[in-house]
Amino acid sequence: MRKPDRRPTAASRRGSQDKARRDWRAGGEPTELWFFGLHAVRAALENPARVRHRLLATPNAVQRLGEAAIAAGGLEPEIQDPRRFGAPLDPNSVHQGVALHCDPLEWPPIEEVCGLRDRRDAPRVLLLDQVTDPHNVGAILRSAEVFGARAVIAPRRKAAPETGALAKSASGALERMPYLRLSSLGGAIEKLQEIGYAAIGLDGEAPLDLRTAAETTASTPAALALGAEGAGLRDSTKERCDALAKISAADAFASLNVSNAAAVALFALSPRS
Amino acid sequence: MRKPDRRPTAASRRGSQDKARRDWRAGGEPTELWFFGLHAVRAALENPARVRHRLLATPNAVQRLGEAAIAAGGLEPEIQDPRRFGAPLDPNSVHQGVALHCDPLEWPPIEEVCGLRDRRDAPRVLLLDQVTDPHNVGAILRSAEVFGARAVIAPRRKAAPETGALAKSASGALERMPYLRLSSLGGAIEKLQEIGYAAIGLDGEAPLDLRTAAETTASTPAALALGAEGAGLRDSTKERCDALAKISAADAFASLNVSNAAAVALFALSPRS
Repeated sequence: MRKPDRRPTAASRRGSQDKARRDWRAGGEPTELWFFGLHAVRAALENPARVRHRLLATPNAVQRLGEAAIAAGGLEPEIQDPRRFGAPLDPNSVHQGVALHCDPLEWPPIEEVCGLRDRRDAPRVLLLDQVTDPHNVGAILRSAEVFGARAVIAPRRKAAPETGALAKSASGALERMPYLRLSSLGGAIEKLQEIGYAAIGLDGEAPLDLRTAAETTASTPAALALGAEGAGLRDSTKERCDALAKISAADAFASLNVSNAAAVALFALSPRS
Repeated sequence: MRKPDRRPTAASRRGSQDKARRDWRAGGEPTELWFFGLHAVRAALENPARVRHRLLATPNAVQRLGEAAIAAGGLEPEIQDPRRFGAPLDPNSVHQGVALHCDPLEWPPIEEVCGLRDRRDAPRVLLLDQVTDPHNVGAILRSAEVFGARAVIAPRRKAAPETGALAKSASGALERMPYLRLSSLGGAIEKLQEIGYAAIGLDGEAPLDLRTAAETTASTPAALALGAEGAGLRDSTKERCDALAKISAADAFASLNVSNAAAVALFALSPRS
């Protein structure tokens, strides 16, 4: 299904490309969202909830995307010369010849996404405290999906916005794993606690071992809070947690990358098969 | 300690910069190694085993590196104008105003690094089968250090070479965690098996769960083999393994980033504290 009424004129296109360029140069939250890379674009084309505007692709990328994905996307690909790729992307983006202009996803409210389905429901939720690197957040969304988490929650400010770089690192998981941005992380923790979640903060200084925390919360809803690398959780976040736990390290000087810490914590808290 | 006899002339410097630029442009193994970023350079300055040639730093970076690290490095910093940073780096490198020209580390042979120290010794070793992304390998080295692995082993070809990007992602772990490059991964597995290691290949299709494999190898030496994302382990690698195991996923369509899979596997096989 082509939507010709939505396709901008060449002049407005140039304008929006300039605007998007300014956005990523300024490091601000982009007002126009462009995904790139085969995995991320294919997943966005196949997601019925994703509002899509334009699909730019080289002849080779059209083939690699596949007919099914393009048909699902409902957009006529605008064929690009590989040497003059027309999407307003950061020049360092590995776009693999394909870019999709689309809208951010809208998810239901936290009470709905994270609500308990029955008395035995013991979901896992991740809370990100000022984790701003899009590659880390993308990898965290992938891990959250692998371990069946209900959502990844971050504040509106000081978080990684939904961008092409994040979507690429998430390798499709951004389409399926709710990534909720709330006005305050503290408010999110409170709401989860009201629902019945135990909030566990990851903290290298904590006396409690994550494996012990995992045993305690094996059959209860649990929300895991992770801070940015180096800084860790803010004090205000730690204070709201029901418990703090650490991933025991053989070497006290070493530290995990934040997405690796998230994967380990999700695995530790996942049900034993 | 200044080493004036080692400092190249301006002309030879330009030549070596051009050469390094050609190297990273061609995507080949660089013949001249430049580290960048505060963490990676500080760790290399503090590592007595690291042979260092030149330290380039802005006045601000000199302060942030700290007197102790610079003294440990034994090189007089060549002060740089922040707007004309003179190191032959990829222009996208986030160098934080500091770069170090140095040599790759040389590690003892595998028999020595991975040898058993007593009858109860149960070390862990990681084997990387065609994992070529430097950011993933850097994160893997960090995780290997956190969980006390003995070494990370990769083949000479189709692996991530020791580069500035890898060192930056490793955030210092490259100085401390042996990263051995051997002529063949199959040969490495055989040597480890001769020493007494069980080789466990991570494979999403395996019937055995990683937690079960971890219980079986709790008190024995174990080498974990991981393949590249998408491709997974090569058949020839799988055939050499004593067992294949999977990280149980809630969602069969989802997959972990390779460094996250390594962190989870190392955690699963780490001793319970």
